[in-house]
Amino acid sequence: MIRFENDYLEGAHPDILKRLLDTNLEQTAGYGADPYCEHARSLIRGACRRPDADVHFLIGGTQTNAVVISSILRPHQGVICASTGHINVHESGAVEAGGHKVLALPSADGKLTAGDIAACCERHYQDGDREHMVQPAMVYLSQPTENGTLYSAAELSDISAVCRRYGLPLYLDGARLSYGLASPRNDLSLSQIASCCDVFYIGGTKTGALFGEAVVITNPALKRDFRYLIKQHGALLAKGRLLGLQFETLFTGDLYLKIAGDAVRLALDIRRAFAEKGISFYYDSYTNQQFPILRREQLLALSDTYSFSPWCDLGDGRYVVRFCTSWATTAQNAERLCEDIRGRL
Amino acid sequence: MIRFENDYLEGAHPDILKRLLDTNLEQTAGYGADPYCEHARSLIRGACRRPDADVHFLIGGTQTNAVVISSILRPHQGVICASTGHINVHESGAVEAGGHKVLALPSADGKLTAGDIAACCERHYQDGDREHMVQPAMVYLSQPTENGTLYSAAELSDISAVCRRYGLPLYLDGARLSYGLASPRNDLSLSQIASCCDVFYIGGTKTGALFGEAVVITNPALKRDFRYLIKQHGALLAKGRLLGLQFETLFTGDLYLKIAGDAVRLALDIRRAFAEKGISFYYDSYTNQQFPILRREQLLALSDTYSFSPWCDLGDGRYVVRFCTSWATTAQNAERLCEDIRGRL
Amino acid sequence: MIRFENDYLEGAHPDILKRLLDTNLEQTAGYGADPYCEHARSLIRGACRRPDADVHFLIGGTQTNAVVISSILRPHQGVICASTGHINVHESGAVEAGGHKVLALPSADGKLTAGDIAACCERHYQDGDREHMVQPAMVYLSQPTENGTLYSAAELSDISAVCRRYGLPLYLDGARLSYGLASPRNDLSLSQIASCCDVFYIGGTKTGALFGEAVVITNPALKRDFRYLIKQHGALLAKGRLLGLQFETLFTGDLYLKIAGDAVRLALDIRRAFAEKGISFYYDSYTNQQFPILRREQLLALSDTYSFSPWCDLGDGRYVVRFCTSWATTAQNAERLCEDIRGRL
Amino acid sequence: MIRFENDYLEGAHPDILKRLLDTNLEQTAGYGADPYCEHARSLIRGACRRPDADVHFLIGGTQTNAVVISSILRPHQGVICASTGHINVHESGAVEAGGHKVLALPSADGKLTAGDIAACCERHYQDGDREHMVQPAMVYLSQPTENGTLYSAAELSDISAVCRRYGLPLYLDGARLSYGLASPRNDLSLSQIASCCDVFYIGGTKTGALFGEAVVITNPALKRDFRYLIKQHGALLAKGRLLGLQFETLFTGDLYLKIAGDAVRLALDIRRAFAEKGISFYYDSYTNQQFPILRREQLLALSDTYSFSPWCDLGDGRYVVRFCTSWATTAQNAERLCEDIRGRL
Repeated sequence: MIRFENDYLEGAHPDILKRLLDTNLEQTAGYGADPYCEHARSLIRGACRRPDADVHFLIGGTQTNAVVISSILRPHQGVICASTGHINVHESGAVEAGGHKVLALPSADGKLTAGDIAACCERHYQDGDREHMVQPAMVYLSQPTENGTLYSAAELSDISAVCRRYGLPLYLDGARLSYGLASPRNDLSLSQIASCCDVFYIGGTKTGALFGEAVVITNPALKRDFRYLIKQHGALLAKGRLLGLQFETLFTGDLYLKIAGDAVRLALDIRRAFAEKGISFYYDSYTNQQFPILRREQLLALSDTYSFSPWCDLGDGRYVVRFCTSWATTAQNAERLCEDIRGRL
Repeated sequence: MIRFENDYLEGAHPDILKRLLDTNLEQTAGYGADPYCEHARSLIRGACRRPDADVHFLIGGTQTNAVVISSILRPHQGVICASTGHINVHESGAVEAGGHKVLALPSADGKLTAGDIAACCERHYQDGDREHMVQPAMVYLSQPTENGTLYSAAELSDISAVCRRYGLPLYLDGARLSYGLASPRNDLSLSQIASCCDVFYIGGTKTGALFGEAVVITNPALKRDFRYLIKQHGALLAKGRLLGLQFETLFTGDLYLKIAGDAVRLALDIRRAFAEKGISFYYDSYTNQQFPILRREQLLALSDTYSFSPWCDLGDGRYVVRFCTSWATTAQNAERLCEDIRGRL
Repeated sequence: MIRFENDYLEGAHPDILKRLLDTNLEQTAGYGADPYCEHARSLIRGACRRPDADVHFLIGGTQTNAVVISSILRPHQGVICASTGHINVHESGAVEAGGHKVLALPSADGKLTAGDIAACCERHYQDGDREHMVQPAMVYLSQPTENGTLYSAAELSDISAVCRRYGLPLYLDGARLSYGLASPRNDLSLSQIASCCDVFYIGGTKTGALFGEAVVITNPALKRDFRYLIKQHGALLAKGRLLGLQFETLFTGDLYLKIAGDAVRLALDIRRAFAEKGISFYYDSYTNQQFPILRREQLLALSDTYSFSPWCDLGDGRYVVRFCTSWATTAQNAERLCEDIRGRL
Repeated sequence: MIRFENDYLEGAHPDILKRLLDTNLEQTAGYGADPYCEHARSLIRGACRRPDADVHFLIGGTQTNAVVISSILRPHQGVICASTGHINVHESGAVEAGGHKVLALPSADGKLTAGDIAACCERHYQDGDREHMVQPAMVYLSQPTENGTLYSAAELSDISAVCRRYGLPLYLDGARLSYGLASPRNDLSLSQIASCCDVFYIGGTKTGALFGEAVVITNPALKRDFRYLIKQHGALLAKGRLLGLQFETLFTGDLYLKIAGDAVRLALDIRRAFAEKGISFYYDSYTNQQFPILRREQLLALSDTYSFSPWCDLGDGRYVVRFCTSWATTAQNAERLCEDIRGRL
């Protein structure tokens, strides 16, 4: 079985493992107060062109979202999010467990618009009984979205402007940020993201790390006491240098973007193979996730050799499925899949 | 100005005030451990034909919903609710502040169906990654709904059966239960409600009391330690007998249903007056709330004499508004409104 | 049985009931947006000499504490409190349910000192791993304390200075504030309390109201969105005017202090009667609560005629009990108790 | 600088790194549904002689405590704990953030007794107003304690009996369990712990793993939906096999106990070196943590070569400090420290 069901099937990029091995018996201070974390922070500040940013390393995405959101909101406040947003559907209610409502706005492609956000705020503040409702108080985006779609620089900039107008911190979930940055359709740089957002995270788990997400806080008002929140959520890794070492490796010599670029190229090869068979896509993704719409027999023709994720049943005999590539996908496996798409469907 | 904007504009039914006055200087134990509460509990058990039920008195609806829901759910569980449900929109995120997601299902008229609930559970348990999602674990209904619509005996019975099949406690919010019971379209008795639901509350605030809601717990598994939850939510009134005295009065000599019946009759008079002018209604309510759809000039023709609530702007020059009657609405005021509807619109 | 076990045994002061009766069928806006609340707010601002203060009316003490504390703290912060403080022992974990640790400091008499608070902050900020610990971020006092003891003007002023030095909002729980203000040992005025504290509440439940506590916020930074928090906690009374009417009555013609003064005088009569029999006191209270230390036979000699609260068993055959007077205690009942103390003990 | 300040200074045992390296590019299912986790679970079940136990792998201790406690308690319930317990002092209020009070009982050596627990429950249930207080509903122990002290088999068995009498699940935090099991003073086996406790965890982070804690649930009532809680707390590692691989390695060929035994032997060498200089200890620890009481000059005599943790200032010119060994401490470094203790103090 060749697996394409998600982008966390393997361990870590070999450079990372080597680095862990080389430093294994060194003694360093715990909880991120070690030189590797310090160096990694400085590399990330450089990549974002934000020497003033605070950078913190956490372990996984759900945890990171919970820490960031709980550090920002007061109890009566909620977070605006596309209805398909990860915090709304796939985090077991972690935001609510922290006391906050996810204010989910309908979205066809997984993206919010500046207009959606403004309308939500207007509705709230126009209501005479507004204190009976959860106050919209921050915005959550994911880039790329859970559907592989991308915000353009113009879109993100518009959203940022609306957020600033209404006083809403803007938070971007970058679990797969590398695959966005490496997409041929992307026109957003890390430094533009850092300018538009008050806080965002750069995902490591899905791009070559064993685990790890790097939170970048650019808004000074949001920096205060962030480490208490990390600790309270059980997200302060005792051997914190493991995170520093991994991000140091990823942000040395452009490894992060390089391995993501390879993954996206293979995903687009797969996309083309499907498209050439006349197969259409549920979401228009130019990132490492592809969502072809298959008939049952097409699905069966691939499922003995390849694993992929069910996404949804269209009810008309067609099914949306997801194929993911990652930094670890081999050209050979991707090519074999393309051939079987061409040959079997 | 004659006010119809809501059903909590006045104080209490005179019988209640008299009772408070007559007993004012008696000394009784606090926190509901007094003979008036005991008597009121026994009257309510009788009215529900559930001698085994636990009855607790709380102060208001938002508080009652928060206490009941937090007493039932574990942290990873959510409450199924119509998207228009009070807990989803008008309680400032009290359910989320208690740690739980409201699993809002779309609803045109404010009601859930047995099928909606079953489908929600099926979707959850069919998913291989179900632990990434909030587990549906109880159902919240309001009777009448926030829109004045009513569950029939058959509908409630179907919902109850689905809830039992999936192991979901069924909770009914009866903030305006009296106006449902007194509706000519109602076919549900208090004892049927008590049979179908695991827990529900009988609203006092909107039906003659200064304040107060009576929670009735019929499912023995949900009775345990309920008073701790009341206290933790700041809902254990020190002078608890005030609640006992009010519900004792309401459940003596059928006062509760009698005053609600009067209010519903006046609401239906108003309904007829609108209907006779060709005005249609946003929700098909036969309870104390009426939702006519008015053009701007119709709205203005009434607004100098009467207050009523804006509900929504249909965007085509028409507006939905709400007129409420209550136990305190006088026949004279309702009749005057009817005349002005006939005369001015 | 003549009851002295607590100070919420009766209903309301007759002037309050009369006022409720006189206004009963008036129609007013809900949720505190009525003229009675507005007038009561203005009277309280006047009594505190703080025309700039925000005043909100809530229903009970546990609820008020929960709302105030949750409106101030971020998730990693805790509230400093004497170990005997009401929030630490008698609110069923309401503060913790809101997500916060009560940082309880040992106290013999129920009072905190400026030094205790400073030391707690110093310990916290000196620790290199401070983010592993809950951050002290506000201070909770009760005046009088749960033990009837009083902060002097000098003590409160010192505490206030320390709080300002460490950036801790100071919150004073005035559930029995009237009985403190009316004590012969008191040297603190309402306006001094308002100057020293960032937020405090004036208790109504135990001083003539059916229920109700008036929160006074003097620190502008703590005013923001307070009504959302009230609503979220289910503490926004639908018929809010009931609270306005009660506080309007209490703060008209000095009724609040007058009835509290009567209660304290009777409590001190009882104190003297015990003292004249050589009976000592567990706490040195000059307020409406008295804590004599009785031997079993003394206790039994009174318990057939009077009810009072057990407080603690000293383990040497002696027991601490509590006698409370209130605005409703009659001179006749207090005198009879004094006589029986003199005659039977 | 040779570091003894804690037991998480280095990376992982070389066998673990090798295993990660060997399996790095294999593709496996995420979130713990892989064969390595399955094998590790089976090894742990075997070591505990509990084929029926549920075993879950989490990342760190604070997180594990939060997940376990929130999976057990209802909102009005608290967890009994020694005042020095990790959850009470060093987890930034994670338990309270989950809504629960830590019911801290005073303890001189970090241990609870069966009598303490029984007395706490008795006090609670004897109180007529018990619902005003947090209900004791589970017990948290750490073995070894934060002070290096150990429960004997008899003590744990007594505590377990009391817990069962009062219906309190017993939870044991085994962050350093290996160093307890390997202590010459220990008389408790893993299988006895599994019999006495309802749930406990076996710490990996401090014993050879990069990170990881294995939760063992023996009480069937506590197994339900545990994975939802893990996910909600952001504790479900995407590449879950990393945890499986580590525990598989530790529980193969007795590696876990062997490396802990080495660490304890070195700690006891250090203990003897201090003792021979007449230095006494703040806690009587026979595990990998040692707490000598040093005068300032003694402290300075070591601090240029060795790092160790400040513990507390006794106020009489003496200081308690902590020296830790771990699986990674070399005999050479420990011997050098012993020599310097003998030579310099």
